[in-house]
Amino acid sequence: MAIVTLTTDSGESDFYVAAIKARILSVNPGLNIIDISHKIGPCDIAHGAFVLRSVFRDFPRGTVHISGVDATGNKGEDYIAVSLDEHFFVGADNGLFGLISDKQPQSIVALNKINPLATTFPERDIFAPAAAKLASGVNITTLGTTTPQFKKMMDRQVRATRKMISGHVIRVDNYGNLLTNIPRDAFENISKGRSYTIQFGGEKVKRVQASYNQVDQGECFLLFNSLGLLEIGIYKGNASQLLGMGYDSPVSITFED
Amino acid sequence: MAIVTLTTDSGESDFYVAAIKARILSVNPGLNIIDISHKIGPCDIAHGAFVLRSVFRDFPRGTVHISGVDATGNKGEDYIAVSLDEHFFVGADNGLFGLISDKQPQSIVALNKINPLATTFPERDIFAPAAAKLASGVNITTLGTTTPQFKKMMDRQVRATRKMISGHVIRVDNYGNLLTNIPRDAFENISKGRSYTIQFGGEKVKRVQASYNQVDQGECFLLFNSLGLLEIGIYKGNASQLLGMGYDSPVSITFED
Amino acid sequence: MAIVTLTTDSGESDFYVAAIKARILSVNPGLNIIDISHKIGPCDIAHGAFVLRSVFRDFPRGTVHISGVDATGNKGEDYIAVSLDEHFFVGADNGLFGLISDKQPQSIVALNKINPLATTFPERDIFAPAAAKLASGVNITTLGTTTPQFKKMMDRQVRATRKMISGHVIRVDNYGNLLTNIPRDAFENISKGRSYTIQFGGEKVKRVQASYNQVDQGECFLLFNSLGLLEIGIYKGNASQLLGMGYDSPVSITFED
Repeated sequence: MAIVTLTTDSGESDFYVAAIKARILSVNPGLNIIDISHKIGPCDIAHGAFVLRSVFRDFPRGTVHISGVDATGNKGEDYIAVSLDEHFFVGADNGLFGLISDKQPQSIVALNKINPLATTFPERDIFAPAAAKLASGVNITTLGTTTPQFKKMMDRQVRATRKMISGHVIRVDNYGNLLTNIPRDAFENISKGRSYTIQFGGEKVKRVQASYNQVDQGECFLLFNSLGLLEIGIYKGNASQLLGMGYDSPVSITFED
Repeated sequence: MAIVTLTTDSGESDFYVAAIKARILSVNPGLNIIDISHKIGPCDIAHGAFVLRSVFRDFPRGTVHISGVDATGNKGEDYIAVSLDEHFFVGADNGLFGLISDKQPQSIVALNKINPLATTFPERDIFAPAAAKLASGVNITTLGTTTPQFKKMMDRQVRATRKMISGHVIRVDNYGNLLTNIPRDAFENISKGRSYTIQFGGEKVKRVQASYNQVDQGECFLLFNSLGLLEIGIYKGNASQLLGMGYDSPVSITFED
Repeated sequence: MAIVTLTTDSGESDFYVAAIKARILSVNPGLNIIDISHKIGPCDIAHGAFVLRSVFRDFPRGTVHISGVDATGNKGEDYIAVSLDEHFFVGADNGLFGLISDKQPQSIVALNKINPLATTFPERDIFAPAAAKLASGVNITTLGTTTPQFKKMMDRQVRATRKMISGHVIRVDNYGNLLTNIPRDAFENISKGRSYTIQFGGEKVKRVQASYNQVDQGECFLLFNSLGLLEIGIYKGNASQLLGMGYDSPVSITFED
């Protein structure tokens, strides 16, 4: 069964998500709909992009991913379908898709250009049928008018020199763990076995663990997680609360000579 | 695959929802179970009815909808299966189904009358098997004893004169948007192009937008939403919090002569 | 379709749950994945065990249940697959599986022993493929090295004499109802028709109802629920808040001579 995933900021107390699913199944009842999350912060493109880029490649190639995060987009922004990194994406051209992969998109089409439909609920009325058609094998170029590019926003960057790497917390997860944007690659390329000090929230730590359970309960751990990113936590505790850190808090690594 | 939807007030931290699904699949493993919401307020029939009536018609005809909102009902109320508006509904006869459609039900049967089962968990023990059978093609009249009507409650009404429409907020959604019960039909029939003033929470507004993104960030918008109902919001803000309005807050439209 | 269930403490705002599902479907796209709950308290083994043991038997025999609660486990604990009570379970050997059934496990295998994979995300990288294989008919003994037992923890026990039963609240559910560990069996065996007084949070009650709706709104009810356990609630109210009781609050029944 072909898969359509949903990532929205619609919450779970309303009819919105079910309406999207009903529309998808009315186009093709054989599709397998998988929820990624409906708890993205309202219009929080950074949150939505982080979640989607962290997981979309785990799905089979050709999976169709609907983004219902800031689904209406800003005035004048199109609704688009994109073929990117061997997956399909459907949503508003609000910058989210520009944050999920460094690859060049293979195709971008603007939806709702031919016989445009006026709707306040594009997830249901435009994204759902387009996604269902893509998942059913319809060629993306037949869904709209080809367009050369989508909106690109600058993502928060890591700064790295021979002496130092500076990054930020990009996500506080359900456990209160602090996921940073500092990648293992940069760390290993720069450290070359040198000693180092990791600084965050008034703490200074001189080593990284291999797993969550290698410190005692209530102690701070640092590790490179399954995304290859530096993560800070308190074993069986809530690091965000206990360290007073949150989204955007700075984290740096200084290397000794 | 035939579809069974679930709308409950059971939350997502307990075993209740999974037990309902397991029972449905034990009757027919080929059914497709779609969650509408499990975050209906405890025993909040108005919330459950609003969500279910807003979405059930988006599903294919013949879809079976379980309501596990106030599932036990009040003392003496039956459990029922209903054929209504080309869909099936199963739940307590607590008034919820009377709020979801103006159509006359085609059939109503009282469940659990023949060899009644004593259970504190009717969603699992009575609704799930009845719904699974309906979705598998079993005739509704074989599931129980035919009964002439279900409980009808008065829904909160809109008052409309030539000069004024008075309604209320019937739902604050995940975005903090205020969904009212004022329908576009009534507005257009009465306004006939006249100027008007919409009043709510101390604000007076003289126009309605066509889409969410036609005002600047932080500004108030009003539109007729995908349900055809007047909706008030703050673009990229939380209108409920910022305007101090909630469920039941009054909204009125006054027309000039 | 064979079923794989998920019970985790991962929440619903991150990519974790979707990553587990994607991995399962990449092994066998025909599996039916059912969420039990992702709202288990972080590393709360008692909560996870209560939910899983309350529902797993409602699923068809042979269903595979992944526990992603405290998924990493403590240092030195294995990842295991277990055949128990005609179902399969996959997770960390952190004591959770020892709390879900009194039956003896038929098979236990330690996963990730042959060519062990270093991962900080065992739910996705170890549990998901093992569960997908089990659900696809692979023999459990081929998945790892047979091991004689899993971790057993003492569950909170009920104390019962001829004169008295003492128990505790083991779960506050979504409605604020207080589920205790006092079983109907023990109550009936000891009471033998004698009068009794149930004490909890300063209240004394001398009878048990058969259903939730047999008291007036706002009044306290006690019943033996669908799990056969004594449950205390306020009809259409939140007993936990109104009685000031929560997890672990004592509840006792004293029998008259």
